[in-house]
Formats: sequence, structure tokens, C-alpha cells
Amino acid sequence: MNDTIVAIATAHGIGSISIVRLSGKNALSLALKLIKKDTLIPRYATFSKIYSTVGELVDEGIIIYFKAPNSFTGEDIVEFQTHGGLIVSNFILEELIKLGARLANPGEFSKRAFLNGKMDLAKAEAVQSLITSRSEDGIKILARHLKGELSSYVNSLRDELVTTLAYVETCIDYAEEDLPLDILEQTKSLLIENYKKLNEIVEISEQRKGLIEGFKVTIIGKPNVGKSSILNSLLKFERAIISDEAGTTRDRVEESLKIGTHLIRIIDTAGIREGVSLVEKIGIENSMKAVEEADIIIAVFDSSRVKDEEDEKILEICKNSGKKIIYVLNKDDLESKFNYDFEEYIKISAKKSSNLIIETLKKYLDSQNYDGIMLSSTRQILSSKNAKEALYRAKDLLNENELELFAYELNLAIMEISNIAKPYERTEILDAMFLNFCLGK
Amino acid sequence: MNDTIVAIATAHGIGSISIVRLSGKNALSLALKLIKKDTLIPRYATFSKIYSTVGELVDEGIIIYFKAPNSFTGEDIVEFQTHGGLIVSNFILEELIKLGARLANPGEFSKRAFLNGKMDLAKAEAVQSLITSRSEDGIKILARHLKGELSSYVNSLRDELVTTLAYVETCIDYAEEDLPLDILEQTKSLLIENYKKLNEIVEISEQRKGLIEGFKVTIIGKPNVGKSSILNSLLKFERAIISDEAGTTRDRVEESLKIGTHLIRIIDTAGIREGVSLVEKIGIENSMKAVEEADIIIAVFDSSRVKDEEDEKILEICKNSGKKIIYVLNKDDLESKFNYDFEEYIKISAKKSSNLIIETLKKYLDSQNYDGIMLSSTRQILSSKNAKEALYRAKDLLNENELELFAYELNLAIMEISNIAKPYERTEILDAMFLNFCLGK
Repeated sequence: MNDTIVAIATAHGIGSISIVRLSGKNALSLALKLIKKDTLIPRYATFSKIYSTVGELVDEGIIIYFKAPNSFTGEDIVEFQTHGGLIVSNFILEELIKLGARLANPGEFSKRAFLNGKMDLAKAEAVQSLITSRSEDGIKILARHLKGELSSYVNSLRDELVTTLAYVETCIDYAEEDLPLDILEQTKSLLIENYKKLNEIVEISEQRKGLIEGFKVTIIGKPNVGKSSILNSLLKFERAIISDEAGTTRDRVEESLKIGTHLIRIIDTAGIREGVSLVEKIGIENSMKAVEEADIIIAVFDSSRVKDEEDEKILEICKNSGKKIIYVLNKDDLESKFNYDFEEYIKISAKKSSNLIIETLKKYLDSQNYDGIMLSSTRQILSSKNAKEALYRAKDLLNENELELFAYELNLAIMEISNIAKPYERTEILDAMFLNFCLGK
Repeated sequence: MNDTIVAIATAHGIGSISIVRLSGKNALSLALKLIKKDTLIPRYATFSKIYSTVGELVDEGIIIYFKAPNSFTGEDIVEFQTHGGLIVSNFILEELIKLGARLANPGEFSKRAFLNGKMDLAKAEAVQSLITSRSEDGIKILARHLKGELSSYVNSLRDELVTTLAYVETCIDYAEEDLPLDILEQTKSLLIENYKKLNEIVEISEQRKGLIEGFKVTIIGKPNVGKSSILNSLLKFERAIISDEAGTTRDRVEESLKIGTHLIRIIDTAGIREGVSLVEKIGIENSMKAVEEADIIIAVFDSSRVKDEEDEKILEICKNSGKKIIYVLNKDDLESKFNYDFEEYIKISAKKSSNLIIETLKKYLDSQNYDGIMLSSTRQILSSKNAKEALYRAKDLLNENELELFAYELNLAIMEISNIAKPYERTEILDAMFLNFCLGK
């Protein structure tokens, strides 16, 4: 924490502006060396020439000094707005390292902000999720996390549990003291209520995690039903934004495309794009995996052919998936022979147009928009699940009057919830105990 | 010029910060709507919540107002430093468009800066080249262009020619006036001097254009001499920066790699990487094309085999190329049978290490570093070439005393040079005429 860290804060690539960000106690003095000035007025956007450590002119740009503690990290920060591209910002970064700054680790600016009390964990995670967020509703939810809405929600839940635990520990430790008689019933209903709250937020967050991560779409169907045409026409539709972090690996191609306010991810698990059928290549049992991974499945059937065993298998996978399925009867221009019993389906000729699929996708995605509170990371969801299960066990233990075990589970639930925003300290329980009871001891 | 334009100024992709930049007379009023504030202090980095047009919170960040004319474009500018990524900055951009801003065309901010007299063409081009620049020396040269060094150089050359043209036109138009007697000789030597200057800067700029664009390297050699191993070991060497704008097309793969202060471009014209030999695939005649395109050629021969006809052809291509050639005798671990007469060459075993190639490349690249004045774009080089040729013709016409044709060529030369920095206006000639002679008419 005592050293001064530096990083390029903007995305890597070609753009008009890049930002090199320095944070730490030497940020100002290092920055002044590169701009040959004596001082910088805090928060004032100063236009300046930028020099190398040996005094050669390398660029000119806007320099801004954020004086501690009024900065993102809570430390002195200097930002260099340099010309963009691959070399300039990197050169300035390296010059600052020569002067004694250290290349920041991933997330280190946010970590310092957290350690300096500038934000709690939920906010720090909201920052990261905002950056990777893939829908407009997602960013609105996360902006509210930044404002502290998730933290307050979770902390109020946590405070109730801390108070309860304090009650019960008092019960155990100071058994000779008088305690309110209705405490057992009160505690039970509090546990049930909080269990429900956690359960609800976990469910919503799991269903809607596509708002943050991007909804994952996959196309399945047996060979020659027209999966490639559908994929290609989807990819042609407003394929404005291709993410840089795209998970293009040997066995999986991922494309991003914007539909309405969402940036969806099309998972091409086995190279449909190359015209090789998913099912051909990886077999029925593996298309189950593709279905498992996706949020939305486009299941394609050839309406001009009679339904066969393979189609039946795919239909079965769909029905058992619990996922959103868009059933597509392709080759609508040919005579219909496919015997179907879908409640909802789309008939198209992918050769002509797949617009109906886009419309159906858009309608479904819009229905997923949400403006309540939700958890934005797998870590938060996992902690909430653990907390909820601990509360469930605690409730049973309370019924059995196993107070010590109950306290253990309640403590566990608090610890898990504390992972989301504010770290948990054992002294809080004591504080709560002494706050609620005048024990006089 | 009357509308307010908006664009995302940072590179597209995942980064901590993105900048949305608004420029135009409504920049401030549009920005204030999204931050729900009454005003912004010019140049003060204000931390603010950012809202959608319908008042939903979408992000928080730093907002900076640059009041006209003290801004990059000379107009009112507001910059939103938002959280990075794919959605947030794009959403804010779209909200500003909803409020009446227009999506900027490529280069439109610089164009406005130029039209508002904030920078001349040479500086505007330096901005663009800085962004795409691929060596540290390149950015230093361009930073000096930004400071105006290229512009002054070119403008002083141009002013001399304008003065000369004014002399001569006076000669033609006001033949009855007295003119200095030594004018002919003076003019001749001025033409020769400026011709030489232009010739020199064009030569340097063509040789060193790799400083800006990145030096292009290609590997040639007949099948099975080890081109793939060499390419792979080059690519393994500090392949930190892969450019986003990489020219990956069907018939050409380009990789960027950093060697010393340079970001070189390895042109893999015919998939050496896939183990298909360049010569195998495209034949001897086509490897001439690869050589033509590159700045540096790595010519690989198998030292364990006797030189054959194909090797001879490759050697011939190299000798006639006029390019920097690095001759490599590969398979140094086997008995040497190759009969060579290179002045300089490297013996390696690519299977073990290609470090010697990297060292040789680095040494050559370092020798190309340059801190003089050079032209940074093909456009500038072309104009200088045209100007230089016009001067050459003008000199001959002067010898033949063809004053009107001479004036025509000189005018052409001035117009071409004016393309580089400051546009040319015909009245300048008149100004120069009246400035230099008291014609009294």
C-alpha cells in the first residue's frame, strides 16, 4: 500500500484517448517529472506537454491531479489523458515505472479504494460488473449497487441477524438474566422472513444473470435443418459490437450481438458457422451440454420432413431443460410434413429471413428486464445461498432448542452475508449485545 | 459545424474507464441534463452521478467541461469519464443522441479543431499518426509535429517559394518596374536548395516510415528450411501487444510484436504458421511480392543441404530487393553443406533458439531510430514528391527563360506543399508582392 501503482485505465486498442492512471503517495511527484511542472492544481484539467524521463517530448494531453483522500482510491491520483493507440500510453506507463511506480495488478486500484474505505465489496464488484455488463438494465441495476442500494439491503438483513445472534448468545452466556419471553417466536419469524428474502434474491439473480453477463443463446437441431443459415442471419443483424474479451477458444466460438438493450452471446459450441452440424459433430448427448450452458435455446426442426427419432431426442432435451426454448420450424416454403405439438413456435424460411427469430428473442429479452435489487456476481450468489441454507438449518435447530448449534449456524449465515458487502467482525456481536441489554455486569 | 457531435473517444473493449466526448454549442446543456446539475465549472473534474434521459441512474464518473475556445475543437466540449466496457459508454452516447447530439464522423473532432484554427493539417495528421504509431521514436517525432515543428519547417520552405513566386509574377505583370538584377541567380539557387530539402525529407520519410507504421518483416525460404519454427519463436518473443486493428484477412495474417522500442509487424502472407511453406504455396514469383511489401526480409536457408536452384532464385530476389535482408543459415546442429557467400549472416538452429534473429532485428531497428524531422503520412510524402518534381521542372523552365510556365510550376509546388500544413490562398502571393516591393500603383 505504500508504493505508487500505475496502469493504463482505458481499453487496449485504437482510440483517440488513452488514460494512464497513477495512484499512491508519489503519484504527484512522479507525474510532475514527466510534465516539467512544479505543481498541479487539484481536479483542474491542465493541458501540458508530456516528456520522457530524459526530457524528450513524447506527447501532449490533459493531466488531472486528484488529491487524497478525494480520489477513487483515496490516495493521490494523477491521470494522464494521452493520445490513444498502442505506443504512447504504453511509453508513458514505462517511463513512470522507470521513475519508481509499479505496474498495478488487476483490480488493485479498486482494492486500494476498498482498503481505504472508499467503497465496500458490493460496490467494488459493481464497478467490475459495470465494465463487463451486457445490458442496459444491467448497468442501471449496477449503478444502484454503486450508489449503495445492494449494500444497504444486505446490511439491513445482516444487522437483523446480528441482533438476533446477540439475543441468543446472551441467552446462552448469561442464562441467569431475564430475557423477553416472546423471543423464541420473534426469532423464528425473523429467520423465516430473512430466509425468504435471500431465497428470492438468489432466484431472481440466477434467472436474470444474463442482464449482467449477457444472455447466452445456442442453436440446436439435427443436421441440415438450417442451423447455419439461422446463425448467419443472426450474426448479420446489428453485429456492431464484437467484444474484445470474446471467449474464442479451440472448441468454442462466442459472438456478441446487440438485440434491443441487450448484448447477447451466441455460443457456437461446435462450429455451426463452418457448416458442420452441432449434432453431427458432437452427438445428441453433447448437445445436452450446450443446452445446459445456455439461457435461451433456439431449437430448429425441418418442417418439410417427418419428425424422426433424432428430432424426438432434441425435443426431449428441450422439455427437460427448464430453459427458455424458441421452437423454430424451418423450410416453411416447402410442404409441411413435420408433426408438432408446440404451444408456441415460429415458422420461417431461414433462406429468406430470420427476422421472426430476432423479434421473438427481443420480446423475450425485454420480458427479462428488471429494476429491482439483484446480486451481480457468482460470488455474491454463492454466499447468499450458503447464508440461506445456514438459516434453514438454524430454524430447525431452534425448533429443537439446540441453542449452541443454532448460534453456530446463525454466525455462519452472518459471515456469508458479510462477504457481500461489509466484512464481519466478531466484536459486532458483543456491541449488539451490550447495546440491546443493560446487563449491568 | 452548428450541431453538437458526440463519440466514444477511448478504444472499444474492456477497460476501467471510457470517455464519451461531446463537442458543439449545446455540449454543456446536453451534458447538464444527464447529470442533473445547473452548471459545471470549466476544467474542473466534477464527480457526478449520470442519469438516463428519463432520470434513471446509469453510472457515476468524472465530468469535465472545456469552455470554448479553450478546448481541443475550439468549441464547448464536455467529457464523461464513465466506467469502461461495452454497454455503459454506449448507453450514455445513445442518450446524448436522443437529446439531440449527432454521432461524430471519423476524424470530425480533429476536423473541427482544424476549421476553428486550433491546429493545422500537419498537426491534425500527427494526432492520427500518434494514435496508430508503432515505435517510441515515432511518437517522439510526432509529438514534435504536434508542437508544430513539421509545420514550421514546411511553412518556412513554402514562404520562400511564395516570395520567389511573388518576385517572378511582379516581373511578368509589372515588367516596367525595376527588379534586382541578381534575381535570376538567387531564384535558381533557392529552387535547387529547396528541391534538395524536399528530396531529403522524402527519402528519409520513405526509409523510416516503419517508425510510424511499424516495420514490416517477412520470412522467405524454400520448403522445410525451418520458416515455421523461426516464425513461432519470433511470435513467442514478447508478444505482449496484439493490435486490435490487425489486418487479419483471408489471405494474410499480421502479427504485432514488440522488439526494443518498436512494434514490428510480421506479415505471414501465406500461412507459414499453419506449417505450409510460403514458397510451396505461392511459388517463387509470389514471394517476390512478399519481399516487395516488407521492410525487412528474413531469408532462411538449410545449411545442411547443398544450395539448389530454388535457393539461388531466393538469393536473387533478396539481392535485387534493395531491402534490409537478414540471411539465416538454419539447422546449424547438422553438418554444413550449404555453399554461401553472404557478407553477413546468422547461423542458428531454430529448433533450439532463434534469439540471434531477435538480436539482429533489434540491432537493425535501433539503427533506424531517428530524431530529425520527417513526414508522417503517405499523403504528406506524395505532396512533397509532387512539389519536388514541380520545382525540378521550374528550374529547367527558368533556364529557358519561360517565366510564365515557370510561375505555373512554382505555383503548383507551393500548392502541393501547402497540402501538408497550411492551405494556400492566392492572395498570399499578392500580399508578398506588395510587401516586398513598393510598387506605388
